[in-house]
This record gives sequence, C-alpha cells and structure tokens, in this order.
Amino acid sequence: MSMHELVRQLREPNTTKIVMLVADGLGGLPIEPGGPTELEAARTPNLDALAAEGTVGLSLPVAPGITPGSGPGHLGLFGFDPLVHDIGRGVLEALGIGVEVGPYDVAIRGNFCTIDRDGLVLDRRAGRIPTETCVRLVERLRAGVRIEGVETLIEPVREHRLVIRFRGEGLGDNVADTDPLTPGMPTLVPVAGDPESEKTARIAEEFLRQAGLILQDQHPANYVMLRGFAGFPKIATMETVYSLKAVAIAVYPMYRGLARLVGMTVVDPGKTLADQMETARAHWNPYDFFFIHYKYTDSTGEDGDFAGKVQVIEALDAEIPKLRALNPDVLIVTGDHSTPSRMRSHSFHSVPTLLWAPATVRPDLVTTFGERPCLQGGLGQFLAKDLMPLALAHAGRLQKFGA
Amino acid sequence: MSMHELVRQLREPNTTKIVMLVADGLGGLPIEPGGPTELEAARTPNLDALAAEGTVGLSLPVAPGITPGSGPGHLGLFGFDPLVHDIGRGVLEALGIGVEVGPYDVAIRGNFCTIDRDGLVLDRRAGRIPTETCVRLVERLRAGVRIEGVETLIEPVREHRLVIRFRGEGLGDNVADTDPLTPGMPTLVPVAGDPESEKTARIAEEFLRQAGLILQDQHPANYVMLRGFAGFPKIATMETVYSLKAVAIAVYPMYRGLARLVGMTVVDPGKTLADQMETARAHWNPYDFFFIHYKYTDSTGEDGDFAGKVQVIEALDAEIPKLRALNPDVLIVTGDHSTPSRMRSHSFHSVPTLLWAPATVRPDLVTTFGERPCLQGGLGQFLAKDLMPLALAHAGRLQKFGA
Repeated sequence: MSMHELVRQLREPNTTKIVMLVADGLGGLPIEPGGPTELEAARTPNLDALAAEGTVGLSLPVAPGITPGSGPGHLGLFGFDPLVHDIGRGVLEALGIGVEVGPYDVAIRGNFCTIDRDGLVLDRRAGRIPTETCVRLVERLRAGVRIEGVETLIEPVREHRLVIRFRGEGLGDNVADTDPLTPGMPTLVPVAGDPESEKTARIAEEFLRQAGLILQDQHPANYVMLRGFAGFPKIATMETVYSLKAVAIAVYPMYRGLARLVGMTVVDPGKTLADQMETARAHWNPYDFFFIHYKYTDSTGEDGDFAGKVQVIEALDAEIPKLRALNPDVLIVTGDHSTPSRMRSHSFHSVPTLLWAPATVRPDLVTTFGERPCLQGGLGQFLAKDLMPLALAHAGRLQKFGA
Repeated sequence: MSMHELVRQLREPNTTKIVMLVADGLGGLPIEPGGPTELEAARTPNLDALAAEGTVGLSLPVAPGITPGSGPGHLGLFGFDPLVHDIGRGVLEALGIGVEVGPYDVAIRGNFCTIDRDGLVLDRRAGRIPTETCVRLVERLRAGVRIEGVETLIEPVREHRLVIRFRGEGLGDNVADTDPLTPGMPTLVPVAGDPESEKTARIAEEFLRQAGLILQDQHPANYVMLRGFAGFPKIATMETVYSLKAVAIAVYPMYRGLARLVGMTVVDPGKTLADQMETARAHWNPYDFFFIHYKYTDSTGEDGDFAGKVQVIEALDAEIPKLRALNPDVLIVTGDHSTPSRMRSHSFHSVPTLLWAPATVRPDLVTTFGERPCLQGGLGQFLAKDLMPLALAHAGRLQKFGA
C-alpha cells in the first residue's frame, strides 16, 4: 500500500492549521573549515525558540546524493515522491515564467539557434542573443504563427530561450527533442513516441515550418529547436490526498505554478515577506495548509554571497513572531534543498528542518536551529516526502491504522 | 528480494536465545514543556544498565506519522511489514476477546442495533446496551441460530458489540459491511466482492435472517449489523521465516492471538509480570524466541495517568534482573507504539528501544533509557520491521550474504 493510499484511508477532518515555511535553498556549508554554515552564523532567536520548543532534523529532498531542482524539491515537501512524480522540463520552464499549464496543454522549451542554408546547426544558442532580441523575435513569431486546431502561446524567457505552449484536445507529450546536440548536424523532426502524441508531433512540425519562414532573415536567431515536451502531470491534489484546503503564498512564478500543480489556491502574496505574513493572516480562516515560499536564501546562495544569505536568514527570523501570533497547530520551517553559498548552486546536502507543534511534539535536546544541531534532533534524517504525514499526524488529522 | 526471502536464504541454526520484551505503548511525551517523559521520569536502574551495556534507538512502528493499532504494531516487531500484512478488523476483534481464528474461519464484528418496522436503522448502537444485556442476547442467538454447513460461534464483547465466527470450507472474507452508517437508512445485505466469498455472504444473510427473528422483541437491540469480515491472514510463521521456535508469554488475549497468527506457541503466562518471568524460565529450554508482553504501560497511558505509567515502568524495571539471570544472547526491550499519557491514546511517536547482546553489541554513548537518550543511540531511528533481522544477526543466526 502506498503512503498516499494509507493517508487517504486514515485522514480525518479537523480544524487544525498547518504552516509550511519553505526557505528556498536553506541548507548551507561553512565557508572555512570548522566555521559555521550560513544558518548557524545567522542570529535567529525566533527560529531557535521554535527549535527548542519543537523538534528538528534534516530533510533529504529526493535521496542521498541527489541534488534537486525546484520541482522535485517542492514535490517532496508536499508529500509527493519526486522519483515517482515527474514534472516535465517544459512545464517547469513555463511555470518559472508564470505561464499556466493545464490538463489540455503541452509545454515546450524552445531555443533560438543558428542554422546554415542546408539546415545544419551552426550555433545551438544563436550566439546567446540578448533578451531584448528574444522578446522581439517572439513577438514576430506570435504575429506570424497560425496553426489549425490548437491554441499556441509563445513567451520569451531569457537570452535564446523561449517557451511554447500548445493547448487543445488529444495532445500527448511523448515527443522527442529536435535538438541534435552536436553542431554541424541537421535539426531533428519532432517524432511521436506513442500514438497519443502524434497530433502534438504534427503540430510541432508545422510550428517549426512556420517559424523557419518567419525567422529566415533574423540571423543569428534564424531557427528554433524544441526540447522537453511536457503535459500537465497526472498528480493528485492536496485536497484529494490530505483533505487539506491549501493556499500558496509565494512571490515567484515557479513556486506559484508548482503549488497550482498539486491543487493549491494561489493568492496575491504582495512583494515582501512581511506582505506574505499579512497575506497568511488575511487568509487564515478559509484555509488549513499554508505554503509560504521565501526565495532569497536560494538566490544569495546562488550568488555565492555568504554574508547576504546570513542577512536574509535573519530577515526571515524577524518575521517568525507574526506566524506564531496566528497560533498554528503545526509550524514547519524547512527548505526544498540546500544552496551553499560556497558552491554557488543547489546541492545534495540535507536540509535543516524544524517542526513545532505545541500539543503533540516530543521535544529533543536541541535549542538552536542549524545544520549541526539538527543532526541531534528528534526528526533524524528523513526523506522530505515523509514530512507531510508527520505534519498531518501532529495536526490530529490521521486516525489510527488497524485495531 | 524481500527481507524475508533474504533471511530465509541466510538463516542458520544456532542454540542462541532471543528475548523480546514488549512494553505496550512504551513511548511517551513530557506532561509539561521541557519536562521528562514517563520513561525518563521513572527510576529504572536495570533498564539503564541494559542501555549502557547495549545500544538504543527509536522504532517507527509503521511509517512516519502513522499511529498503529496493536495488530500493525506487533506485526512490525515480529518482522512483518504492517503495510503488506493486513489483519482484518474481525480477526483482531476476535483475538481481543480470546476467540481463536484459524485457516477455515471468517471472523466478523457485530453490532446490536435498533431498527424500526420498515427495517430502517434508528440507532446503530442499540442505545449502547449494558454488557450484561449483550451477554444475554448472545446466549439467545447461540440457542437459536442454526446454519447448515458451517460452524457458528457467537461471543459477546462489550455493550452493543459482539463477534461472530463462521468456520467451514470455502469461506472467502471479501464481504461488504451491512452497516449503512447513516441512521434512517435500511441495513445492507452482505454482498460478496468475489466468487470465493459468495458462500460466506449467503451464510451471513441467513445468520441475519435468523437473528432478526430471534431479536424481534428485544428492543432496543432488535437486530444485528455485520462489519469487518476477515479471514485468517496469509502470513508466514516465525518458524518458516526465521527458523525460530517462538513462545508467547502474554496475559491479554489480543497479544496471545497475534502471536498465534505468526505461529508462536502460546503458553499460560500466569497473571503478573513476575509470573511471566517465571514462565519464561520454565520454558527456557525448548524455545529460542520469547515474546513477553506487558500491557500496563499502555493502559496507564490510555488513562492519562502519567504517574501511574511511571510506576508500572518502574515495576517492569524491577523484573529485568530475572531476565538477565536467564542469560539470553539477545535481549530487546521496546514497545509496539507510543501511548503518551498526555494524549490518552496510541500515538505516532517513535518508540524507545534497547538491544542488549553481550557478545556482539557495539555500544553507543547512551547510559540511560529514555526518549531523548535514545535519539543519540546506535540503533538510530529505524522501522520496527528491521528489528528482527538485527536480533537474528546478534544471535548468530544469519550467515554472510554473498562471497
């Protein structure tokens, strides 16, 4: 029996509230041997109090050694095994720029590229054209492309990258990439991998034919390649699995989109973390699960800015009293993955996690929030997907299993 | 390869002895912030010595966040994944009152209920009749019910509840409940979910017809509803999986019944824990696995009696020297789940566990037995089903895997 099947059997209604505050890329590394991590260096009296009163541990987003992208990282936190539920690249790229993806859509990552007269690829990234050029060329494509029987949406991303979304009936997403990967080779024809995707492949082929004509004089961006065809993932919602009315309070499109995939309501979060806290307060009554996403622990990490990451952690800490003031039954602070500023990237390291639930928590001996203290905590090291059942249990939302 | 397949391949005979002392509902919670749990508050010099000489950890009975009933809790400890091996409700109810269930049986939970002249349910619990009334009505049913081709056993439980066991050839247990759940609706006919269960459904229907006639003047308990049809679970025995001759020394029927399901011999345990220890001594030679069940850590927890639970833990501790005097090769002290007196119920929290095995144990730094110390122990946090292979290994009963 899968964990979701079990949870569906055991769930029971309650009026309890669960808050999951996700500090993106929260986990870090010391910048020098023996030194503190970003979280350990930050002055975090409010998080420390939660850690002291609650229990802590370290979350493995996917599996040991696996560095997650934002998609798998968040799916795990929402209790969906990221090794089972795959969100296609095209969908993630679309969500990242705020393009909605629904059950009748196929989303595709596009690359502007340079081809020669014989159709051989000279530059797979069209010399990394400036984003303004990308925007202008996308406008041309929008003006020119017309495909029968499908609604086509084209959006610029950055430099040579764009997103194409086809919307219509019967669009499978099992279509091979058209990027030959090796310069000097011709681009590939979009080939369907199953009968359900043949319509999508034909539409993609027609798109490429029209795009080729529209772009032919736009050297170096005189053609487009398509990658990562992806439909709306077949995934249950927070409501159907957990009976939770979930709301997402996230500023960045990617996280709003991920939340929408698992059926959360997405509300206007404002701009700052203080706005997000106010949004949570304003929506406290109708919802019982609050996903609050904080981006800057990740972006400072990606920038390699140790001091900056410390600072945004302290800014996060300062907002914690506003969450406590709402009297949630369960308050979780975690991250979707680690982004050590020393590595300037997502990493595979486990993620400091605290669970505070005054009615039911079994406290451990840990009194501060940080990577080393979390190693001594009551949550141990656990798979991120196991966090939601724990949250439900602490919220009194799961009955006894068996007699 | 499943763990059981692996163990069957690797097991080897030995004369070593394993004792598993299960303190039901052992795990607890502090009653006040920062305070000790029941186990931490108890004075337990003998358990502490075992913890100091052995190794400790925390057992997850089923999975994170899942609160187990006694059935899943014990199956896990016996090394059977409770998510794979499901013991039906009817069987557990039967075991709980000491009704044996074997391979030709279907056990069913019954409810006396009140119906009106049109057969609509007025009260699903017949006004919770006193247990004496239940006993009297069960005697009437026993005297009156006669069904061809099947042996029918009827036993009172408590208030409006009873157990019915049909014994015969070809009785599948896939039969739907007859409780409509909503008052004002008619009771349902027992419907078979597969061809193998059609005979059972017909017998149940005949049982209900006869019971309706016998009870018609017994308002408010003028009818019976049937729930949780369950046959003998298809489960291997301790002997076939582990080559262990296992004996159960348990006072309460439920635990004797669970032990019997996995093929243990059930012996007369006496009444007190001291009796149980004497029983273990008396049966030391013919057996090599001793399941000793201690109920009162659970019942005091269910009563919300923190001080009482402390007391029964101390009483348990006082008996430990008698087990050590038997010189077991492996001595495990654990629980089937937590029952924090603060929650007055089973809970999902992990369970303090110690493993003492003088010949092979790798000690950790822990010197006392309690929830917080166990977090630092060598067993870590582990799934209960992993405990039996560890016990076998420490008992020198598993060969090397591979060359």
